[in-house]
Amino acid sequence: MQRIHSAHLPAHAGQPVRIAGWVHRRRLLKSVTFLIVRDATGLAQVVVTDPAVREVVARLTEETVVEVTGTVVANDTAPAGVELTGPSVRALGDTAVPPPFDLYRPALTATLPTQLDHAAVALRHPRRATPLRVGAAATAGFRAALDPAGFVEVHTPKVVESATESGANVFALDWFGRPAYLAQSPQFYKQLLVGVFERVYEVGPVFRAEPHDTARHLAQYTSLDVELGFVADHRDVMAVLRDTLAGMLAEVAGRVSPEGLPEIPARIPELHFREALAVAGADPGGLDLAPADERAVGQWGVREHGSDFVFVTGYPMAKRPFYTHPDPADPAYSNSFDLIFRGVELVTGGQRRHRYEDYVAALAAAGEPLDPYRSYLDAFRHGMPPHGGFAIGLERFVAQLLGAGNVREVAAFPRDLHRLSP
Amino acid sequence: MQRIHSAHLPAHAGQPVRIAGWVHRRRLLKSVTFLIVRDATGLAQVVVTDPAVREVVARLTEETVVEVTGTVVANDTAPAGVELTGPSVRALGDTAVPPPFDLYRPALTATLPTQLDHAAVALRHPRRATPLRVGAAATAGFRAALDPAGFVEVHTPKVVESATESGANVFALDWFGRPAYLAQSPQFYKQLLVGVFERVYEVGPVFRAEPHDTARHLAQYTSLDVELGFVADHRDVMAVLRDTLAGMLAEVAGRVSPEGLPEIPARIPELHFREALAVAGADPGGLDLAPADERAVGQWGVREHGSDFVFVTGYPMAKRPFYTHPDPADPAYSNSFDLIFRGVELVTGGQRRHRYEDYVAALAAAGEPLDPYRSYLDAFRHGMPPHGGFAIGLERFVAQLLGAGNVREVAAFPRDLHRLSP
Repeated sequence: MQRIHSAHLPAHAGQPVRIAGWVHRRRLLKSVTFLIVRDATGLAQVVVTDPAVREVVARLTEETVVEVTGTVVANDTAPAGVELTGPSVRALGDTAVPPPFDLYRPALTATLPTQLDHAAVALRHPRRATPLRVGAAATAGFRAALDPAGFVEVHTPKVVESATESGANVFALDWFGRPAYLAQSPQFYKQLLVGVFERVYEVGPVFRAEPHDTARHLAQYTSLDVELGFVADHRDVMAVLRDTLAGMLAEVAGRVSPEGLPEIPARIPELHFREALAVAGADPGGLDLAPADERAVGQWGVREHGSDFVFVTGYPMAKRPFYTHPDPADPAYSNSFDLIFRGVELVTGGQRRHRYEDYVAALAAAGEPLDPYRSYLDAFRHGMPPHGGFAIGLERFVAQLLGAGNVREVAAFPRDLHRLSP
Repeated sequence: MQRIHSAHLPAHAGQPVRIAGWVHRRRLLKSVTFLIVRDATGLAQVVVTDPAVREVVARLTEETVVEVTGTVVANDTAPAGVELTGPSVRALGDTAVPPPFDLYRPALTATLPTQLDHAAVALRHPRRATPLRVGAAATAGFRAALDPAGFVEVHTPKVVESATESGANVFALDWFGRPAYLAQSPQFYKQLLVGVFERVYEVGPVFRAEPHDTARHLAQYTSLDVELGFVADHRDVMAVLRDTLAGMLAEVAGRVSPEGLPEIPARIPELHFREALAVAGADPGGLDLAPADERAVGQWGVREHGSDFVFVTGYPMAKRPFYTHPDPADPAYSNSFDLIFRGVELVTGGQRRHRYEDYVAALAAAGEPLDPYRSYLDAFRHGMPPHGGFAIGLERFVAQLLGAGNVREVAAFPRDLHRLSP
């Protein structure tokens, strides 16, 4: 008999079926035992009256993996309106050691550190599993938006020769006796691959040796990186970002449908950096937006345009990485942008420099040596189109979408300053 | 005027258009100049007769990025049957330094090391770009096969606390002052996540500190990992692998259509390990298949079943990792398999153990300490279903599919014993 998932039981009313999953909960009453079995699609209620089978169920523990055969019977009070009757029950493995916290309660009562110490079990709770499903859906939507637009998926090195792009916050490793570093981003590689495919994306891990223990930082996270060539300026990049986010949100809505998903407008409202300072009532000479300023920008978007999303463009060059393209009309400002979602920065991107001599000058101005960048910059001597791109931190995206207070709640096995296992 | 890609020019015959790309080649004849422009979709021929424009083109170099406006005119002798006439030509960046090898010849004449030293430019040649497109298509097909079958995409840690699974061949790194290691595979994590989602896959980098400089090994490669629960045995895993490969091949055929793609039979022929030894004429007491034996198995598949693919099942437990599930009927042999493609191992997989006590016993039998595995094995005490899975090395898959002699030819920026840049 083929196994039926719990979500599909209503279609089998009146029929004998086989289900399998984890013992989610048991209620041992005087004359009847209710066994709730959990599988990947939900819960199934099994009604046990046969004394021999009741004895089997009584000896089981929560989380033991079982197989149940029985007859599907309609019951309006059961989950999904059906239950299994006349069952036989068989364990598919050893009797489980009960987990250190109850998985059948609406919320996990254990502290986040305890949940993370026992991640493999904590993730079985819907509050922890759903964010991972949202992440998978968002990633699928990301690709579904980019594939038809001519983007090629690439895979780039995660171990690099030089500690570029900030220098600090890199993990050092031993590469066959030579020093090497974990890549902080695929930035340089995705730019080089614009020279090959014009449009590329990568979904992969990036590594930041963040010495800060905050609710927003992970030492490894999944970066959704996009880069495209033959752009007029950063506005072409922003248009791709808007459509990519729309694709991600559509797939999240279609597959998981969590509460509170935002609408994304066809055209996301924009503020130049200087306007953003004014909207926030901040010092007009400021070089960056403080968290309170970003919140004010978010409120402006809702108030003036009914939008949860706002683009802030033209950040000062002084606060952007050296590869950022300046605004040709106003070179102290850049052709870059941040996307503010509900008052918090969600995505950073912009147009990049594409001329070799501009890179040499920018590195000199930043007081950075050229040598660590040489093998990367060499490609710019051989013809690179105007280009730009952006990167979305998957875990941060999911956390902001779901309103999670800590990015560790939406990562399967987070890595940070203190956590290296499981 | 919107930019048109070269592949779409035939639809614009008679119209003025704008194209953009790289100067692929120029032919400066007595009274006419031919400019070949390359973009992501192919080549476009531009016919220049205006002396002023001929002078502009004469000063350009190969690989300079240009924008050309002109009129599309049918010409049976031009690439794709059309060319651009009456053009204006404008460089979109600096005049390119010509690359160290010609990109317009049918094959790259530079040695592979020279190509890899200048990867960003070498990859612009179709012989190097096509394998990356095949890899992207194969990965898309992998997901397209698994998503509708209920698999959830996951992202797992690439930095781990313990050097498990072989101990040797791991890269050590400094994690905030603590020793840590790059993950050699997501094996343990994908197993744990079967406890959450029943069916999972991951596309991500894995790291092997291979001290051998061979044509088949990379120190970082992209692993396509699959794991599924509630299997009867390894045969359920093999069925998923067959369908996954069919999805991958279909997407490669649809997007890139390289020559020599294999047909995958609805049911891949199988040999038990002992039968494989007999087919190869090898020592019946052998514990593994030598390369010559795998070739013989491949020939058997073609001869007896007209199949490029052959499953070999039941490898001796002595040669399989400790998490491999034994064959209950014959415990010296395993519920594992290799998939042989054209005489070479392409995929390894099998059923895994799912009982905690079996792991403890297997590690003890292997003389391995339990401690490094503790945070992983703990999940098995909390209920794990029978499960199994497989892993496909993307670069090796593409290399075997295309008949590439060296796996470095199909990786964008390969990493090995000697190579850490670009």
